[in-house]
Formats: sequence, C-alpha cells, structure tokens
Amino acid sequence: MKRAKAFLVLFGSLIFLAGCGNLQSSGLGSGSGTKSKSSVQTTGQVSDSDYQGVVRNGKYLTSKSRGLSEDQNTNGYNLKSFESGLLTVSKKQFPTNKYVFQEGQYLNKTTVTNWLARKSKDNPDGLNPASNGQTDANKRNPIYLQQLEEQDYMTQSGSKLSLGGVTIGLGMNQIDYYTKKQYGPTYQTKISNAQMVAEAKKMANEVVKRMRAKSGMSKVPITIALYEQAPNDSLVGGTFFANGTSKNGSKTISSWNSMNQKNYTLPAVSGAKSGNSSDSDAFDNFKTQIQSFFPNLSGVTAQTHYNNGTLAGMNVSINTQFYSQTEIMSFTQFIATEAEHYLPSNVPIQVTISSSEGIQSFVARDSGQKSFYTHVFGSY
Amino acid sequence: MKRAKAFLVLFGSLIFLAGCGNLQSSGLGSGSGTKSKSSVQTTGQVSDSDYQGVVRNGKYLTSKSRGLSEDQNTNGYNLKSFESGLLTVSKKQFPTNKYVFQEGQYLNKTTVTNWLARKSKDNPDGLNPASNGQTDANKRNPIYLQQLEEQDYMTQSGSKLSLGGVTIGLGMNQIDYYTKKQYGPTYQTKISNAQMVAEAKKMANEVVKRMRAKSGMSKVPITIALYEQAPNDSLVGGTFFANGTSKNGSKTISSWNSMNQKNYTLPAVSGAKSGNSSDSDAFDNFKTQIQSFFPNLSGVTAQTHYNNGTLAGMNVSINTQFYSQTEIMSFTQFIATEAEHYLPSNVPIQVTISSSEGIQSFVARDSGQKSFYTHVFGSY
Repeated sequence: MKRAKAFLVLFGSLIFLAGCGNLQSSGLGSGSGTKSKSSVQTTGQVSDSDYQGVVRNGKYLTSKSRGLSEDQNTNGYNLKSFESGLLTVSKKQFPTNKYVFQEGQYLNKTTVTNWLARKSKDNPDGLNPASNGQTDANKRNPIYLQQLEEQDYMTQSGSKLSLGGVTIGLGMNQIDYYTKKQYGPTYQTKISNAQMVAEAKKMANEVVKRMRAKSGMSKVPITIALYEQAPNDSLVGGTFFANGTSKNGSKTISSWNSMNQKNYTLPAVSGAKSGNSSDSDAFDNFKTQIQSFFPNLSGVTAQTHYNNGTLAGMNVSINTQFYSQTEIMSFTQFIATEAEHYLPSNVPIQVTISSSEGIQSFVARDSGQKSFYTHVFGSY
Repeated sequence: MKRAKAFLVLFGSLIFLAGCGNLQSSGLGSGSGTKSKSSVQTTGQVSDSDYQGVVRNGKYLTSKSRGLSEDQNTNGYNLKSFESGLLTVSKKQFPTNKYVFQEGQYLNKTTVTNWLARKSKDNPDGLNPASNGQTDANKRNPIYLQQLEEQDYMTQSGSKLSLGGVTIGLGMNQIDYYTKKQYGPTYQTKISNAQMVAEAKKMANEVVKRMRAKSGMSKVPITIALYEQAPNDSLVGGTFFANGTSKNGSKTISSWNSMNQKNYTLPAVSGAKSGNSSDSDAFDNFKTQIQSFFPNLSGVTAQTHYNNGTLAGMNVSINTQFYSQTEIMSFTQFIATEAEHYLPSNVPIQVTISSSEGIQSFVARDSGQKSFYTHVFGSY
C-alpha cells in the first residue's frame, strides 16, 4: 500500500541554472507552493518503493523521445510491461531512496528512430541489420530490435540534480511482423531465442559505446536491460531476460545477469502453459466462486507474472453487468472476501471490476500487505 | 480506508429453510468455502462502515425490482447518488454492525412500475396523479415521483436472517420531462419546491400504509427518504431533503427530519452556485498546479457534496493524454502530493486519472484518513 508522505524536495534551481540566487535549502519544502521561474521540483514520493520524478517549472520533464515507444508497440501490453519492468531492473542499481527518476533526456526521437531502423547508406546508425533484399520469411534479415527506451537516474547534491546513471531497455522481437508491400498482408519471421539473445547483447555493447561518447556520460553507470516482446496477439506483455551494467566508463557490458520471467493468462487454455498449477487452481476456485454471483455470468480472467519460477503478481479482471450501485458495493465486498480466501498470498494482487461503462471498483493487495484495499468509484 | 476483515458469517441455513440440519455456528466460518444447497452467506465486510450483503446459494440476492431504477433515470448520476444516499440514511436507523443489507424483496418490478405510473382506471395503485388531459406545461398534472427503491435490513439471530426494517427512497422530480406524442420533442413541467415536498410526504404516508399491509411488515421500522432528482443535464446527482421513520406499526410518518444537502460541480461556471468559496478556491489552486503538468493540458473537474453547509466529500476527475507508463506513475505521485497540499482536509476525496483508454490510476483519501492511497493500474 502506498501512502503519500510529506517527504518532498523543492529544488530552487537545478543543473541548467546552478548558481542561481533563490535557492531553497534542500530536503525541505514542498512539492508545490510558489515556484520561481526555472525551478525544479519532484513529483513527491508516495511510497518508498517508487521513484520521485523530475518536474521543471511546474511541468513534467517528458522524454526527449516521447511517444516513440507507443508507436513501436502494436500490442499495448508490451509498452506497459516494458516500462514498468525497466523501473524494476533500475531499482536494484539505482535505489529509490538515493535517486530521482527522469524521463530520458539524452536520446531524442530522431536518434532513437534512426537506431531502431535498419542500417543503410542513409542511416549508418541503424542497429537493425541492413536489408538483404529478400522478402521470404526465412531468408530476409529480420528486425531484431523493436523498441529502445532511456531512463535517467539523478542524484541530488544540495539543490542540484545531476546525472547518476542511465538505464536503457532494448525490446527484442521473437517474431518480426512485416509486409511485402504497403498495406499488404502481414507476414512473420520467427527469430530463435539464441539468435535474439546474441543480437541483443551485441546491440547492447554498441549502445553503451555510443552513450559513452555523449557529454556527461563517460563515467556514470549504464545499465542495459534486455526484453523479449510478446507476440502481437498476446494478452500479456513480454518479459526481461537479462541485464548488465557498464561501470567506471567501460564501453561494454562485461557480465550479464540472466532474468527468468514468465507471464501467463488464466484461466489456462487447454494445451497452453499457465505457470504453477497450484496458482492456476487457486485462480480457478476463485473464479468459480464469483462467476455466478449475479444471475448474469461474470467474465473473470487474470494475468500472472513469475520470477524464477515463483509467482510474483496477479492482475485479475472481472467484467459483469450491474443494475445498481448497491450491487457494485456488495460485489466488491464479496470479491475482497473471496480474494483473501482463495488467491495466492504474499504476492501483489490487483482486481479490477468493470461494467460496459468502465471500471466500477477495485480491490488490491500490495506487496507485503495481508489484507485487501477496496474502493468503489462513487459519484455525488 | 477500507480493509478486508476476516469477519464473515456463514449461515448454514436461513429464513426459508430454518430448522435445516447442517447449521454452522454463527459468527464464525468464512464467506466462502463449501456451501450446502440453499445456504445463505454474506458478502463479507471490508469496512465497519459498510453493510454486508446477502448471498444465497453462492448468488447475490438481487432486487425483486432489479433494473427498474436504471430505466427510470435518464441521468446516471441520479441513480448512483440516490442509491448511495439511501444507504447513508439507512445507516443511522439500521447500524452496519447490527444489520445486514438485502436488496428489496417485498416490492417486485410490476408493483413498483404500477406505483410509479399515473393513477388510472387500469392502474388504481398509481402514486402519480391521473392525467387531466392537458398537454400544456403549466396546465397538466406532472409526474412527481420518478423512482422508488426498497432496501431491506436484516437482523441475524443464530443462523437465521429475519427482516429488521425497511428503507424506501422516493425520487421526486423538480422538472418533469414529457413528450406530447411518441418520439416528439421533450417539454418540461417545472415543479415548485413546496409542491414537490408536499407530494413527497403525502406519497410517503401512502407507501407506509401499503407496506404495513404486507406479510411480515406490520411491526418493523419503515424509513422513508425523500430525494430530489437532479435535472437531466446535471453533472451531479440529486440530493435528499428529508427522512422519517414509522415505528411500532404506525401507518404514517409522524415527524420528518429535514436534510440540507447540496451537490455542485467545479470549476465554478460564472454565475452558477459552487458551494463554499474557500473549497472552490482550494480546488482552483489544485487545478492550476496540475493542469499544465504535461505539455498537453489536462482536464480537471470535480463534484462536491455538502451536508448542512459543510463540505462532505469531493470527487475529482482528471483527463489527460499519457505517452508512457512512467508518465502515469509520475503524474499519480504528483497528484497525491498536490492533493494533500491543496485539497480540503478532513473530507473523503477521490481523484480518478483517466486517458482516452479509461482510468489509469487513482488517488483517494477516505473519511478520517490523513494521507492518500494511490494505485496505478498495472499490467504484466
């Protein structure tokens, strides 16, 4: 559970205006209040486990490549899981109590677009292989790298924020979707796991080398996290398979930490993998209990996330039709009761309860909590 | 803040099957688990301030007039505020620690439909006046009563649930919308406050008289709550203006408690009433801080609810466009920080943060809490 803390830092000035006169003493002050021109604040921290973000002149400092990841992902689940997972990887290297999160400021949209494209005479920076002229699924050079995202981690010294490190995520295709002509049918080139991993690590080293050449980037730790995109028809996002950090100005990642993550959907479709069977059974029992709560059947599905073979989280989606606000309230209480009884303990669980008009209520238990928080969206 | 408690009661049997063999001792057991045929359980209670609801054979005991209130309300805000408010009124008469909530079982859909219609030769039970044949807005008899809802409050004795009282809400029109012919244009008959109140109290007594004639209803307390429907174009629901309770089998409400409730929307539109100006200013300051957080402007509106001239709650809706999951996370933290700083203290506050794809996160502080709970809807 996350609670807002009055633990906010107002930076009277910042990196670009260091030495400006009207500095506030750091570590105090509020995220809001009167702000001088060109001031930096942070978003405030509502939980020790979340980063504060950088706000400048009352505006969020958006990514220099804003919107690109959205364009690159046909499957929206990939976008959410890629970015959330990148934060999780970063927290080990850049702890939330020492670093402030900043959207990537070193790679702009043009740069990232060029890097994601094929290498060519016009685009020498392309990280994906040059076209070999083939269009056959098994003969062409596929697009290995689908998305790339930079996240900056800032340290605070007095009233200044300065770059403390960078994390870059590389989203790799297991399937490259392509067309032979514009608006033509979509074909697929499958990429073997071995080849995907090899290409990812090679590209990671190239990325580190290029980052080292940028101003201010010669010494800071650079973490690269490698992500396998889920197929376009997947109902869960992809997963991270490795990360490594270049330290002390090294231009390569010398050792990789492998990451064993899996995402599944429940209920298990016959023949499909669904993770640990006891977790899947727990979900099935929960589903059975609640599905027939109303005369009209409720739709109940879940996403599960595994880390090293152990359940690390479950998101349950329930869709049903409600005829009154009291039905929503009663159903929500019932869900909280049944979730506590049936769903796996000791992992974060999120249950959203929706009608055709959108989310009506939700029930959640965060990591480390024993009981569920419930909220019914109200209206006056 | 609401937390699930393992405070559930499993009734092995119930009113309709009292005396059945497989009773569980009351006050223990769980809301779930194996259930015998025809068993009654409750939804479980996640907060002392909420009622448990009645579940029979694993199914929610839905209202006998289910769906009717939905049909009667062109403005969905009226439905939500009417039903939520009815619960609030009931809590004074039927405390949540002594009573279990049951959707109305004594008035079925046909009965309520007839009561809501005009009195006529074919429908002698109509509570609305007979037509006088006029179609002119100021000459016709308007429809005073727009919706009627029954809520039952059950007491538990051992393993039995029995009726402990009933609350009936009457939703009264301040404007009656009508057409002169099918599919024709809509006209309005305005109803004065004095007349609305007089009609409501007269109908309330008629309703009490009719309820007393029903089996099992001769002695239980019957609370009637009178609600003024908001106009169809309102962005907030209506409010309750009086309630009264018939006790000891009385066939009338002998005294009425007047209720002074107001709902407003913010930001205040020039010329429109907006409640207490300091609350409205607080909202305006909050809005100013967050509206320009992103380069694209966020839409920020609120509903406020007043009881006896004092702010009793605020629901804020924020709509903006996000380009990444990290933007959603940062914005949510910022909202929690600014809400704590700017929004009125000591009242329940709900802030929903939505994009074109629906709710992305929310921030809420329940009654009696000091800090905000935040949740970003995640996906694996």
